[in-house]
This record gives sequence, C-alpha cells and structure tokens, in this order.
Amino acid sequence: MSKAIKQNLADSKKMSAELFCLTYGAMVTEMLKDYEDPKDVTIQLDKMGFNMGTRLADDFLAKNANVPRCVDTRQIADVLCRNAIPCYLGISATASSWTSGDREFTITLEANPLTELVQVPAHLVSAGLSYSQLIAGAIRGALEAVHFKVYASATDTGANTEIRIRFDQVLKDSLPAGEDD
Amino acid sequence: MSKAIKQNLADSKKMSAELFCLTYGAMVTEMLKDYEDPKDVTIQLDKMGFNMGTRLADDFLAKNANVPRCVDTRQIADVLCRNAIPCYLGISATASSWTSGDREFTITLEANPLTELVQVPAHLVSAGLSYSQLIAGAIRGALEAVHFKVYASATDTGANTEIRIRFDQVLKDSLPAGEDD
Repeated sequence: MSKAIKQNLADSKKMSAELFCLTYGAMVTEMLKDYEDPKDVTIQLDKMGFNMGTRLADDFLAKNANVPRCVDTRQIADVLCRNAIPCYLGISATASSWTSGDREFTITLEANPLTELVQVPAHLVSAGLSYSQLIAGAIRGALEAVHFKVYASATDTGANTEIRIRFDQVLKDSLPAGEDD
Repeated sequence: MSKAIKQNLADSKKMSAELFCLTYGAMVTEMLKDYEDPKDVTIQLDKMGFNMGTRLADDFLAKNANVPRCVDTRQIADVLCRNAIPCYLGISATASSWTSGDREFTITLEANPLTELVQVPAHLVSAGLSYSQLIAGAIRGALEAVHFKVYASATDTGANTEIRIRFDQVLKDSLPAGEDD
C-alpha cells in the first residue's frame, strides 16, 4: 500500500473491505429479487451512489482543506484518483483515455473492494447489471455537489473496474447539494 | 486506536467506514420500502448477516491461525471482542452482563460504524427495526460455522450498540458451513 493511500486512510475511520464487499453483495442480491430487470438495479445503484456522493463530498471537503479548487477536468480527475478514491475505497486509481477535448476520461480502479469476493453472473451483466455502478453514482453525486455535472458509468472488466466519466456542464446558478437550507 | 486494533486491521484490506455506513443506510432504506413491517427488515438483516458470518468465519480462521480453539463462552466472547470485531469493524468491544451460568452475555461496541452518520427514526425502532441486526446475524453465522449455535440480537442504545448473545448448543454432528462439499 503506497504512502499516499496510507495517509488518506489515516484521515478517515477504517474498517474491513471484506465486510463491505459482503454487505454490498447481499444488498445487490436483495435488489435483484425486488426488481425484475437488472437494468433497474443499475439505475437504483446509481441513484443510491449519487445520494451518498453528495454527503461524501461534504465529508471530503471538511477533511481535505488543502485540496485546491478544481477548474478543469484534468484537475478533477487528479483529485479523484489521488485523494478521494484512495480515501474512501482504500485503493489507487488512474485516469486515462481522454477524449472530446478532455471532456471524457476513464478512471481505472486497480482493485475494486466491491467485487473482491464476488463473481457477477455473466447473464446478469448481459442483461444490463452494472455491479459497481454505486461508485460511478457516488462520483457523479460528489461532483454535482461541487457544481460539476457529469455522466458516469461503471464497467467491471474482470481484471479491474473502469468508470467512464463525461463532463456535461458547470452548474453556475444552482447551489451545491446540502447548502440550500 | 489501540495497538491490537491496528494489528488486526493490518491483516485485512481497509476502507473508509463512512462509505460503509452510507451504503448500509441506503440498503436499509431500500428494504424498508420493500417490506411493509420493519420487523421483517430486522429478520432479513439477520439472515443477510448470518450468511456473511459463515463466510467471514472462514476468512477469519485463514488469517488468524494463532487464535486458540474455544471451549467455552468466555473464550468465544474473548475472541469476538479482541480479534474478530476489531478486525472487521475496526472498533473495540467488551463483553459483560454474564448470566445463566455464562450462557448469556452482552457485547458492547464502543462505536458502531453502521450508525455513525445515521439517525434511526424512533417510530421505526418501536415498530421492531433493529438497525444493527446485521452484526448480530454475522456473529450468529460465524459461530455456527465453528459449531456453536447461539441466538443474537442487537440494540442501538443511542450511545452505543449492544449485542445480546445466548448460547444454545454445540453442534456436534453437523459439519460447519462451507465444509460440507
């Protein structure tokens, strides 16, 4: 584990990734029973992630006063890969595959704690289940809380997890989530 | 954080307790929508915990070859409080309130990562929701995997979480979960 990740984890309360992995697996199994279409589970995971992301953004900003204000997508990717993802998932991540004038990029998670002990059946993936969409939703929610509207989708490749992020717009006129009361 | 907890966490992959807390909250919210009776959510959390516990027992035994074989409830409580709970939840725990000739005891979690950022509405608690029953179920599952049949129920007191454990019997003739194939 690199020094940067150790430092980020030191700022946060820690627990076992195995327990999280099993709890998440139980939750997705539960949702697959409730929704007939695996695509609907993906949508639901995305929504849950979004709501968590808006709260995690507050938590992250409170703990990382030294992180500079981002003005472009390269900086956003840098903070996500170097600070936020190591802090909350305890893993490192890299940004690559920049396209559309830096408006789109892919974050690759070196190891995904959600899928560590889990084998997602291929027929559910073909039917539209994106098992790790919670993480993509959380990134979307966290960025929306700091005025960046993005689209995010997760793909578990087997070897790792890729989150494709597409920047949409800066939300200039609306207040970030959690500051409207 | 005590040295023992640091050591236990070092043996396990780590991640942020905040992320786990929010994911768990989202899961319970989802389940409350699906089941009309909060009591049914408690039963479901207990079952999910049980299944997780049987898997965590394997994981725990694989990582803790030095933990002695338990022959009585005092030793079980000791391993739970000193090794297993610190390892998976990243917190310390104490056993107390021994009754019925050591057949019943209470494990008090000093801080519960599940409830850290969560306020469980009082009307759901009165209606039978035991928010942290996943932990009680996991303890029940883990002990059953090593041949101890117990009953376990969780109570969030506001200040902390208490898990009441009642020993039922030693399962002598059945194979532990995961070893029957």
